[in-house]
Amino acid sequence: MKSESTNLRVCVVGAGKMGADHIERLTRRIAGAEVSVVVDADISRAKKAVEATPPAVAVSNIGQALDRGDVNAVLIATPGFLHRDMLLQVREQDLPILCEKPLTPDAPSSWEILEAEQRLGKKRIQVGFMRRFDAEYQRLRAIITSGDLGELLMLHCSHRVPETPHDFTNEMLINDAVVHEFDVIRYLTGEEIKNVQVRLGRASRHSHSGQHDPQHVLLEIQNGVLADVEIFVNTKFGYQVATQAVFEEGIVNIGEDGGPYVRSAGRWGGEITPTFVERFGRAFDTEVQRWVNAAKIGEVGGPTAWDGYATAACCEAGVAAQKSGEKVDVSLKTKPSIYN
Amino acid sequence: MKSESTNLRVCVVGAGKMGADHIERLTRRIAGAEVSVVVDADISRAKKAVEATPPAVAVSNIGQALDRGDVNAVLIATPGFLHRDMLLQVREQDLPILCEKPLTPDAPSSWEILEAEQRLGKKRIQVGFMRRFDAEYQRLRAIITSGDLGELLMLHCSHRVPETPHDFTNEMLINDAVVHEFDVIRYLTGEEIKNVQVRLGRASRHSHSGQHDPQHVLLEIQNGVLADVEIFVNTKFGYQVATQAVFEEGIVNIGEDGGPYVRSAGRWGGEITPTFVERFGRAFDTEVQRWVNAAKIGEVGGPTAWDGYATAACCEAGVAAQKSGEKVDVSLKTKPSIYN
Amino acid sequence: MKSESTNLRVCVVGAGKMGADHIERLTRRIAGAEVSVVVDADISRAKKAVEATPPAVAVSNIGQALDRGDVNAVLIATPGFLHRDMLLQVREQDLPILCEKPLTPDAPSSWEILEAEQRLGKKRIQVGFMRRFDAEYQRLRAIITSGDLGELLMLHCSHRVPETPHDFTNEMLINDAVVHEFDVIRYLTGEEIKNVQVRLGRASRHSHSGQHDPQHVLLEIQNGVLADVEIFVNTKFGYQVATQAVFEEGIVNIGEDGGPYVRSAGRWGGEITPTFVERFGRAFDTEVQRWVNAAKIGEVGGPTAWDGYATAACCEAGVAAQKSGEKVDVSLKTKPSIYN
Amino acid sequence: MKSESTNLRVCVVGAGKMGADHIERLTRRIAGAEVSVVVDADISRAKKAVEATPPAVAVSNIGQALDRGDVNAVLIATPGFLHRDMLLQVREQDLPILCEKPLTPDAPSSWEILEAEQRLGKKRIQVGFMRRFDAEYQRLRAIITSGDLGELLMLHCSHRVPETPHDFTNEMLINDAVVHEFDVIRYLTGEEIKNVQVRLGRASRHSHSGQHDPQHVLLEIQNGVLADVEIFVNTKFGYQVATQAVFEEGIVNIGEDGGPYVRSAGRWGGEITPTFVERFGRAFDTEVQRWVNAAKIGEVGGPTAWDGYATAACCEAGVAAQKSGEKVDVSLKTKPSIYN
Repeated sequence: MKSESTNLRVCVVGAGKMGADHIERLTRRIAGAEVSVVVDADISRAKKAVEATPPAVAVSNIGQALDRGDVNAVLIATPGFLHRDMLLQVREQDLPILCEKPLTPDAPSSWEILEAEQRLGKKRIQVGFMRRFDAEYQRLRAIITSGDLGELLMLHCSHRVPETPHDFTNEMLINDAVVHEFDVIRYLTGEEIKNVQVRLGRASRHSHSGQHDPQHVLLEIQNGVLADVEIFVNTKFGYQVATQAVFEEGIVNIGEDGGPYVRSAGRWGGEITPTFVERFGRAFDTEVQRWVNAAKIGEVGGPTAWDGYATAACCEAGVAAQKSGEKVDVSLKTKPSIYN
Repeated sequence: MKSESTNLRVCVVGAGKMGADHIERLTRRIAGAEVSVVVDADISRAKKAVEATPPAVAVSNIGQALDRGDVNAVLIATPGFLHRDMLLQVREQDLPILCEKPLTPDAPSSWEILEAEQRLGKKRIQVGFMRRFDAEYQRLRAIITSGDLGELLMLHCSHRVPETPHDFTNEMLINDAVVHEFDVIRYLTGEEIKNVQVRLGRASRHSHSGQHDPQHVLLEIQNGVLADVEIFVNTKFGYQVATQAVFEEGIVNIGEDGGPYVRSAGRWGGEITPTFVERFGRAFDTEVQRWVNAAKIGEVGGPTAWDGYATAACCEAGVAAQKSGEKVDVSLKTKPSIYN
Repeated sequence: MKSESTNLRVCVVGAGKMGADHIERLTRRIAGAEVSVVVDADISRAKKAVEATPPAVAVSNIGQALDRGDVNAVLIATPGFLHRDMLLQVREQDLPILCEKPLTPDAPSSWEILEAEQRLGKKRIQVGFMRRFDAEYQRLRAIITSGDLGELLMLHCSHRVPETPHDFTNEMLINDAVVHEFDVIRYLTGEEIKNVQVRLGRASRHSHSGQHDPQHVLLEIQNGVLADVEIFVNTKFGYQVATQAVFEEGIVNIGEDGGPYVRSAGRWGGEITPTFVERFGRAFDTEVQRWVNAAKIGEVGGPTAWDGYATAACCEAGVAAQKSGEKVDVSLKTKPSIYN
Repeated sequence: MKSESTNLRVCVVGAGKMGADHIERLTRRIAGAEVSVVVDADISRAKKAVEATPPAVAVSNIGQALDRGDVNAVLIATPGFLHRDMLLQVREQDLPILCEKPLTPDAPSSWEILEAEQRLGKKRIQVGFMRRFDAEYQRLRAIITSGDLGELLMLHCSHRVPETPHDFTNEMLINDAVVHEFDVIRYLTGEEIKNVQVRLGRASRHSHSGQHDPQHVLLEIQNGVLADVEIFVNTKFGYQVATQAVFEEGIVNIGEDGGPYVRSAGRWGGEITPTFVERFGRAFDTEVQRWVNAAKIGEVGGPTAWDGYATAACCEAGVAAQKSGEKVDVSLKTKPSIYN
């Protein structure tokens, strides 16, 4: 095996902020991969992106990229509404895919993707729920699995973001933010979510028009565990993602603050992680490294299309619950065997 | 003024664990009071109690104590179901009263006490919600009142107790434990609680028969603030009472762990407060000192009979919500003017 | 026994800040004592002090107070240079004494006090090293004594004060600040200090003229334990007294920060204790309560005149070490048997 | 530029624990490098190492590796006493070198390396002081440089290791452990160390024969800052490297504990980092990535041979101070201009 042959040649689709970050990651931070093509409908953006990764070329649609024949994996970092068509197109060439979340914006279109995978008979799509690669979530899951503190009984989650764009709607609170909590709760418990309820109380004066922020989202898990999520996307103070797990014989918190500890001007403490980049940057690296390693041997190294579908179903229930104020059941089709 | 005249001469009713603790407190830890009479239907228990507080005498009912004429304040530390009659009897002599929570076990009988106070036209009863004298609750309230972090939006409370007697029922989870949360949430927000919902999920294997433990109690406050309380009374790991307050521009936690910080045997950390005595012992001292100071000048130094009544109404709604699984409104009569 | 007879009638000498605080404490915060006389050479200051403690009278010298015959204990809160004469005078009447630190400003005069106590054959003087009544120091001592973490090997102490008066000299750094560390190190280890070395490095620009601040004080204890003290009296950021104890099998820190935990404006953390009052206020209450309780039965409830003498000897060595930069031995006479 | 040409082809010398870790890192965790040759006098160990990095070949001496012509960088991970000869040999071919610490075991031989670099007129050697790539040390340095808290006055360092091999001598405490503190203190302050003193107190019963553990190392920095290092290599409890920096207007701690926060069995807290691998694993990755990036453009991406030489001189002074108990000056030649 020659060394140049070992690198996965990746086509990155979408050269926006997230895509550019993945290009940088593939090129300078992880092993065994190189960017081969960058696709963006805005070709000038694609061209700018390839400047930092010399051998790569810029094209304006995925078809052109696949036609080149020197691509052996695809990383999709476009807005979610474009995912369905692209996934189906790439799926035809049977390439390994890392698809940023969401798999698709709704459960029916996600189910179509699952059907396409089933026709091919194997999993090729990894969905970008990067929290599963965070060391603390992994350690919490290990504690749950070990049974050392007895059974898990409750999960208290908070997801706090300093601010949102002005067009960030109520639905996006669920679809873009709480979706991560849906996935990690499924990851931690190893069970699906049964139903969702949303409580709207006093809204922050920093809520944008069309937004009721914060919200209190209540979940029941199939095994009876109760979870609740405080979603708050205009906190002003900084970024914070934390979970408190309540066991029969103990309590575990992850997402605690850290870093240099300063005493000055009458206060003790430290700096809060400003954005998800600082909080989960390392998890992104690990996610992509695992995907690259798995792709080379024809496997998936993380959450699958099923996880994309199941969270899409949770989001649908969540948005309905936001509107009705009632408990809404999550409706899932039977899990296809390739995802077991 | 002679020094002996400055001491408040207190009749302590109930010489059980809580009564004995108050006798010790009045005698050896706070200023300006002395125990004059100890009342207990079990006269041998009363006699044992007075050994530690020499000039005091032991009697077997409150009437005997009041007849002696050397009592100028009453501290009630008997089980709650005895409070109503005793409060009405003491009320006739117009003595200052410190009544351990609950004021009475239900809202209608609590309302009778309020009517008796109104007939006399002044507040004489202080209810033993000692958390209001805890430095951290006081500082959290000051932060809320200051508006420094914007408006308060949510309160996440947890109330964890290592274990309970075998006859500690589901109703007692609300009436004996969550009642403290009802009171501090009212204290912190300065508002009444509108409704209560209770979620029952997976129960701990340490739950006693007749108990579903833990429970997740959801509250809405009159000003729109959402609160939730995790009540868990068989935690095994230790005692913990904590509140996280969510503001428009910040988050505040109280009830964090403290004390000596140890690194040994592969772990960092410290000891958890084992019981409410260690956690709130100082608050009890402050509570009784404030009551003594206020009683000497004919005032009440803490939560009033109204607070006892309002929390009794919350408990009624809580127990109904436990049974129905639905949101139950808290029904309060109009607040009599002497409590404003 | 009548109740009025149970109160210790205390003569407080010195009505400055510390004296006023003790008067408030004896009158309103602890049990079993009352202020009988307040002595201050500035009679107007004494008169002002007694206003808050009605039955007490104000006089301008200790002789007048003792002549009144209604005093059965003395609390000395004057500057240290006045202590020797006053202690000898009170000692003649065989009254229990609580003497604020230092016992006297130097070892020879402290030794005179010890000789006076020996002539009477019993301990009557308690010295105001209040840290011994702090819960954390007590817990650290219990860990040391238990041997649970093996033998104690090192102590790293820091003593940080926000600012000092302009006339606070280099010698006062040792005599007024490090003196507390000398005492607690002796308390924690149960051993005397063998020698002292002082390192002067870079001085803060906030050091006053005549002060080299901070300093690094190195100690060897008789049992071989090494200790070091960072003394820093113009920290600006707040007050902090902390000790880290290094054992064969673990590390223990006391004096960690606590209180409400706030996330706001990009920072996590809380408020630093501003002064020794907040940090050690409760220890002062406990100290005086123990003294009162012990005085009533003819005993001493805390550090003795020997502790005052031994720390005076450490201070002498410390000041010499500051000047020479060399290691200076602490010279102690044989401990009289009444102090064992 | 073809993609295969972009990879740095590294010859790794030494296939022991540290070498194997670097091979894994170059192959699977960082970008832009591949292992070309593995050298180990024990050829079977070299052969085993290359199994995990397919295109690489195994040889038994550095000469063979350099003769192959397909190596364009060398990473030295052999014991320190072999470094001098190897560095001089590789230096002749003008290849970029990452040399694990120490540069060489003593100052004179380190100086020879500097002379060799000067003859070639450019820096090619990076020394493996990986702490400089740790995020917390970098943030502390940024705080120092910013002046936001005023001038730096003192550094309190602790370096705690759970256990050592039985032949880990007193000299190795300085040369293998404190050497890291020497380097980071130089890194943090940007100044050289003036002198070293060592205090030996009570030794742990876990000290091996020939070891006096722990020790207290005192340093003075050229700019007057005082530092002290607790070096303790048989702590049993776990691994801990921490620094507390004392500024004119604040205190900063790095190396605090983190990770999941657990409350169970009467204790709160979490797991201590067991070894340097968990504590500094990410810093190692960053170090090697920076070296690779810099090597490709003919530069050095971290501490230089001068840092290797200066710390060797500190170690010499440290070992002498251990023996004499006196303050020993660090003797440094003038810094050659290529290191400025």
